[in-house]
Amino acid sequence: MELLQKTLAAILAPDADIRAQAHERLSQLTMPHWALGRLMDLAEDLAAMSGSLSPVVTKKVVVVMAADHGVTAEGVSQYPSEVTPQMVYNFVRGGAGINALADLAQAKVVVVDMGVAADLKLLATEGKIIDKKIRRGTANMAQGPAMLRSEAIASLEAGIVLANELAPVYDLLATGDMGIGNTTASAAILSSLTGYPVELATGRGTGIDSERLQYKITVIKKALEINRPDASDPIDVLTKVGGLEIGGIAGFILGCAANKKSVVVDGFISSAGAMIAKGLCSASTEYMIAGHCSVEPGHKEMLKWLNKKALLDLDMRLGEGTGAVLAMNLVEAAQRILTRVATFSEAAVSGPA
Amino acid sequence: MELLQKTLAAILAPDADIRAQAHERLSQLTMPHWALGRLMDLAEDLAAMSGSLSPVVTKKVVVVMAADHGVTAEGVSQYPSEVTPQMVYNFVRGGAGINALADLAQAKVVVVDMGVAADLKLLATEGKIIDKKIRRGTANMAQGPAMLRSEAIASLEAGIVLANELAPVYDLLATGDMGIGNTTASAAILSSLTGYPVELATGRGTGIDSERLQYKITVIKKALEINRPDASDPIDVLTKVGGLEIGGIAGFILGCAANKKSVVVDGFISSAGAMIAKGLCSASTEYMIAGHCSVEPGHKEMLKWLNKKALLDLDMRLGEGTGAVLAMNLVEAAQRILTRVATFSEAAVSGPA
Repeated sequence: MELLQKTLAAILAPDADIRAQAHERLSQLTMPHWALGRLMDLAEDLAAMSGSLSPVVTKKVVVVMAADHGVTAEGVSQYPSEVTPQMVYNFVRGGAGINALADLAQAKVVVVDMGVAADLKLLATEGKIIDKKIRRGTANMAQGPAMLRSEAIASLEAGIVLANELAPVYDLLATGDMGIGNTTASAAILSSLTGYPVELATGRGTGIDSERLQYKITVIKKALEINRPDASDPIDVLTKVGGLEIGGIAGFILGCAANKKSVVVDGFISSAGAMIAKGLCSASTEYMIAGHCSVEPGHKEMLKWLNKKALLDLDMRLGEGTGAVLAMNLVEAAQRILTRVATFSEAAVSGPA
Repeated sequence: MELLQKTLAAILAPDADIRAQAHERLSQLTMPHWALGRLMDLAEDLAAMSGSLSPVVTKKVVVVMAADHGVTAEGVSQYPSEVTPQMVYNFVRGGAGINALADLAQAKVVVVDMGVAADLKLLATEGKIIDKKIRRGTANMAQGPAMLRSEAIASLEAGIVLANELAPVYDLLATGDMGIGNTTASAAILSSLTGYPVELATGRGTGIDSERLQYKITVIKKALEINRPDASDPIDVLTKVGGLEIGGIAGFILGCAANKKSVVVDGFISSAGAMIAKGLCSASTEYMIAGHCSVEPGHKEMLKWLNKKALLDLDMRLGEGTGAVLAMNLVEAAQRILTRVATFSEAAVSGPA
């Protein structure tokens, strides 16, 4: 709890002075005013977050947090829980979507076992994943709390520890997730924190049919009724209806913010983590970049609550950090606009009449 | 005219068989079905266009076509025509938006003088730009045809010649534009070809105020009344209300299609060129990738008419090819999804129950 409190206290607003200077330069570039639109907003944000008019975004990393969910016992997903460890092996061998896209972004993939319901010690010993396992998957939230409050705090602090290790080494960080059942937990977090109707917060996840979707909604409603998570206490929400990887993501985001590093948030599950982070420290949102908008219908509402607009909208719903690493190219574009484009006076181009 | 006819006849539909094989592989990747959404559609398109299950998108080029517009005499833009050659110099020195973003995409920038109203021979002699100048800017379309029919055909064929030179060397090509006044010509093309109301087709271009926007609409209406472009004859539309760079872009797209190479189409002006290309050969659209959706309000209607959905939507309105080169990263992502991600059986991951 001490590390969490210390981290929350260390999160400061980005540099308003540098932001104003970046705005001034961007307004004078050889193009119609603000003609590169949201990339220029992002360039301004980058400058403010990093406290520099020449922000660096060379070294990149995506942290993929994996964990299992007891609620899968209810049959909310069409994939079995064993897919979670199988996909961890797939990440390690480089065969997953995140490997292909992180490689394109030249981002390192760091896989973290936050609570996979399988023995992955060998992979950790070999240095292929990081072992932060809190427990072997959460309990079934349709029957009681997903975890203990102490476990929720431990998951947050594990994420912070990772951020404190990676933030000094990397310029741009990103979140990702893997965990069969985690759209169920994420939808429950959305409804718990905002009161958004479960029917609208819940989506098809890996692709369940309409009948199972109705059942998934029933299961989430039951979990909220049984657990009554306290919307004013994000740790209670995480404890009752969250996930170990979601806690890890929330902590990781808080740690990035405390280190003044931009963190690209992936889709539905990562945004559930971002909501927990915002609930604990509102200023943390100023270090978040929303990578993409997911097909999961509740994601738009999450982004609204986070006051973020996603950079990409490509009908994706994979997770793993794929949307976040794809968006890294746009962050680099923003950086180049700020640092490489000439101003009207530098280029001797006439301004507007 | 012979080169144009030969090119139109050479444009064939992409490979349906390879498309089906790509679809089959993409359906078996270790992820929920089609979980990378539009990138998977794009991967399928790429395979079909290139006729290969291992399409290559390594060598990239963006062709920036520059020309002036006689209609600027009416005061439709807030920037003077002299900005067109000034920006050509800025491209050559590497100080423009397109330079920064093409560099990030590792795409070469090829600048083409299609009809700049200034003497740029020295730059051409030094090999810094390509001289395809048809004439020094178009005539004022509010008083008569923008150019002769022979000049319109010459602009199309200049674009084809460029495509025939570049397509064998590059894997992925893109279009860009520079020309003060060219949103006026592009809006006129949109209205001419589709009957879309001038009021809706016309936007603020470089950022004119509401009063000047109303005036721009009046000028375009006058140009359409005086010239009566024939919607069934795209060359007539290009002749009467087009631009030399727009003809060049149209020809370049047709040439890419004839060479079975994908071409990323930039925003409003490039899409006006794409519309001329589609008018001349409907199958050419199957080689087009819509890079981004511009702030110019008419662009959405153009994309609808082209039956394309843009990859990016970032409130951009710069042109130069900036939206197209930004989207190249997504094309590369699509290629990697097709070629690098493991299938369920390759990775020994369980499928849906």
